[in-house]
Amino acid sequence: MAGTVYPGGRKPLPADLVGALEQRFGDRFERGQAVLGQHGASESHFAPVLPDAVVFALSTDEVVALVTLCSAADVPIVPFGAGTSIEGNALAIHGGISLDMSRMDRVIAVHAEDFDCVVQPGVRREELNLHLRDQGLFFPIDPGANATIGGMASTRASGTNAVRYGTMKDAVLSLEVVTPQGKVIRTARRARKSAAGYDLTRLYVGSEGTLGIITEVTLRLHPVPDTISAAVCSFATLPGAVDTVVQAIQCAVPLARVEILDKKQMAAVNRWSKLDYPEAPTLFFEFHGSANHVAEQVETVKMLAEANGGSDFAWSNRPEERTKLWRARHEAYYAAVNMRAGAIGWATDVCVPMSRLAECIAETYTDLEASTIPSTILGHVGDGNFHVVFSIDPNAPEEMKEVEAINARLVERALAMDGTCTGEHGIGIGKQQWLVAELGDAVGQMRLIKRAFDPQNLLNPGKIFAL
Amino acid sequence: MAGTVYPGGRKPLPADLVGALEQRFGDRFERGQAVLGQHGASESHFAPVLPDAVVFALSTDEVVALVTLCSAADVPIVPFGAGTSIEGNALAIHGGISLDMSRMDRVIAVHAEDFDCVVQPGVRREELNLHLRDQGLFFPIDPGANATIGGMASTRASGTNAVRYGTMKDAVLSLEVVTPQGKVIRTARRARKSAAGYDLTRLYVGSEGTLGIITEVTLRLHPVPDTISAAVCSFATLPGAVDTVVQAIQCAVPLARVEILDKKQMAAVNRWSKLDYPEAPTLFFEFHGSANHVAEQVETVKMLAEANGGSDFAWSNRPEERTKLWRARHEAYYAAVNMRAGAIGWATDVCVPMSRLAECIAETYTDLEASTIPSTILGHVGDGNFHVVFSIDPNAPEEMKEVEAINARLVERALAMDGTCTGEHGIGIGKQQWLVAELGDAVGQMRLIKRAFDPQNLLNPGKIFAL
Repeated sequence: MAGTVYPGGRKPLPADLVGALEQRFGDRFERGQAVLGQHGASESHFAPVLPDAVVFALSTDEVVALVTLCSAADVPIVPFGAGTSIEGNALAIHGGISLDMSRMDRVIAVHAEDFDCVVQPGVRREELNLHLRDQGLFFPIDPGANATIGGMASTRASGTNAVRYGTMKDAVLSLEVVTPQGKVIRTARRARKSAAGYDLTRLYVGSEGTLGIITEVTLRLHPVPDTISAAVCSFATLPGAVDTVVQAIQCAVPLARVEILDKKQMAAVNRWSKLDYPEAPTLFFEFHGSANHVAEQVETVKMLAEANGGSDFAWSNRPEERTKLWRARHEAYYAAVNMRAGAIGWATDVCVPMSRLAECIAETYTDLEASTIPSTILGHVGDGNFHVVFSIDPNAPEEMKEVEAINARLVERALAMDGTCTGEHGIGIGKQQWLVAELGDAVGQMRLIKRAFDPQNLLNPGKIFAL
Repeated sequence: MAGTVYPGGRKPLPADLVGALEQRFGDRFERGQAVLGQHGASESHFAPVLPDAVVFALSTDEVVALVTLCSAADVPIVPFGAGTSIEGNALAIHGGISLDMSRMDRVIAVHAEDFDCVVQPGVRREELNLHLRDQGLFFPIDPGANATIGGMASTRASGTNAVRYGTMKDAVLSLEVVTPQGKVIRTARRARKSAAGYDLTRLYVGSEGTLGIITEVTLRLHPVPDTISAAVCSFATLPGAVDTVVQAIQCAVPLARVEILDKKQMAAVNRWSKLDYPEAPTLFFEFHGSANHVAEQVETVKMLAEANGGSDFAWSNRPEERTKLWRARHEAYYAAVNMRAGAIGWATDVCVPMSRLAECIAETYTDLEASTIPSTILGHVGDGNFHVVFSIDPNAPEEMKEVEAINARLVERALAMDGTCTGEHGIGIGKQQWLVAELGDAVGQMRLIKRAFDPQNLLNPGKIFAL
């Protein structure tokens, strides 16, 4: 919220640091209000927090130079990708430099035979897939937003394909990282697997820029399947939709994507994306494989859907129909927030064991229906991960308080089911109390790592936990 | 080798600790030579190193009690599972207590609908699969040896199914861990994915007991496929076999297992397991899926194999034939070592990007042919991971030196190809110089974690790196 004061405060940039940064980065050291504003905004409900300056890095050497200068001046650095994170992960809450990585956007190498590629962190996932298109390969992780690869690695992002292809923890083979001491390390070789010491790759993935600055990412790729089919199916009830997915997974159907949208979300999608789907609980599917194998998967899922009250099962191999479908799914967050003009959004992010998903959604539904604040449910149902999207009146502070209370009850419900407060958005500043509720003393081990790696608390201070 | 002196040495157990352990653990505190010998042996080429005592723990509380006592007395603890590791990972090189977890062998819960289970670390993988058999689920990670789940997590094990189902980093959802300070932490909830802070699960997986003692493991399971088919195919050349696998993966065939055995390994297998396969470079396959999908996979692979000089492609759905095939594969290490009576084994473990595998194997072959020491090649060809197994005369110290030199050249070759010195065996005491060659300054970050978590250097000291 506007006027939020973060513990620890902030101090102005020292003049000698300003001079050194001007000299080193020229016009890529920026302090104009427009640029600060872009780097201080959030796609979610957090009030803007401007950094003191923005530096656009072009190389690993420049990141090392910046770290060295800021360390000497004791000024924080907050890595920044596309600014699409939604837990305030990239807000400079203690001031300092917003380090914009978006101009480090080269695809360095594609090793088609090895199903991997090496990219700079500022490459965005859609651009990467365009780059790969001619080689019969694709990068599956799809959080909806056209985020940067570095940002996705930092928040351990996932999204619609995770049920089949995993999350960023599975997609990242190796990282180049600049440490807070200005050392450049590589966390792993390019082999598909390794047992060589502690798994630093997976430690940096999800560390939200608090342990090091990612300057290069080696990603695992997948062959583009022969046949891709999409399907849409409406259900009489939300539990009917959820049960269909649980049963499909039990039948070992290798679903590539399966997304749930409740009837209010379908209404929002229809309005926003000018579509005319039935306004009922709905599953969006995607199937990957050989033509025969896809047909077989579709047949199994269709049978299960019918047994669970599904109807209007419509599937298609046509790329333009698939594109339309997934564009609508990707715009679902904006569609939901914009049910009210000028509203601001808040997306929850719990993930529970599959066996508890229907129950968790049903109880949440009851809670939502007792509120007048518009909300929808959508989610990655194959992972047990769903989002409630609230559309909040920015001029009604009591609405923000009410959503906070609903979210608190939702997280407590998920934790009681052995779930997590965040399936894919990370902790940032929004979920710190829940991290402690979820993992207790294990958070103490995280603090030990942060203190050992970054004793000066230079990198993205105040995120994940306060020290 | 016998008489190896490890830096840092060892000191006798303090008398008051002995008294306290006798009181706390009764006859589960053992100092008899037979038990010490079992816990001081290695399945590989390392000379025995006896611990000062063995404690058999029955519960997390007992592990906490042991850690508290040993910490106060400054005596090392070395967690021990089934003793099947092969880089000396569980040898008490600085003395102290070998903490035997094998009696913590309960399957605590199976959540069939969630495709997970919770087990104590002493459960062995074969027993787990027997336990799961009636529920249509299986645990895919298969390192050959009937290792404990705790040991497999500690070394980030993988094996024959990794090409399809991943390694222990993918199989472990959550861990209960006792820290060197005696705190009990849980690294994650039971949700399928999470972005809640640093990935402690993946940090402990592969840490070889140096950061904490694993006392409970939550594992991801998979539905038993409708149809399982095995196939064997001989090739005119080793590169023909490798190319078949690379092309199958490019065609997106979801191979469940694909193992390569060279002609010498096939001769050893035939002799050891009383079989009569052609003594030629050979691939062992397994295919999982629906009946139609498996038939389709088999058809594709058969076609590729034929194009690459494969012949005698024989496949079967019969469980007893599959069992025979995979038993022979699992005995391959012993078959190779026992080509000479009384010999000791040494298995290398490099893993390289797929595009370099044929070349890496070919160059290694040339090196092996210049040696008189019997050796074979076998490996998880879909991951780029292969082992050379040497059969060494224990009375010929010059043979050990020669194998050391061949292994050094092999690791350097793999590193030059952007590969790793260890795909799945871990670092232990055998690969410490290669870890530094492979990851350079990143090893410094590992040391920071070890020092932060275990400042007393209590847990499995001297493994992965010396401090």
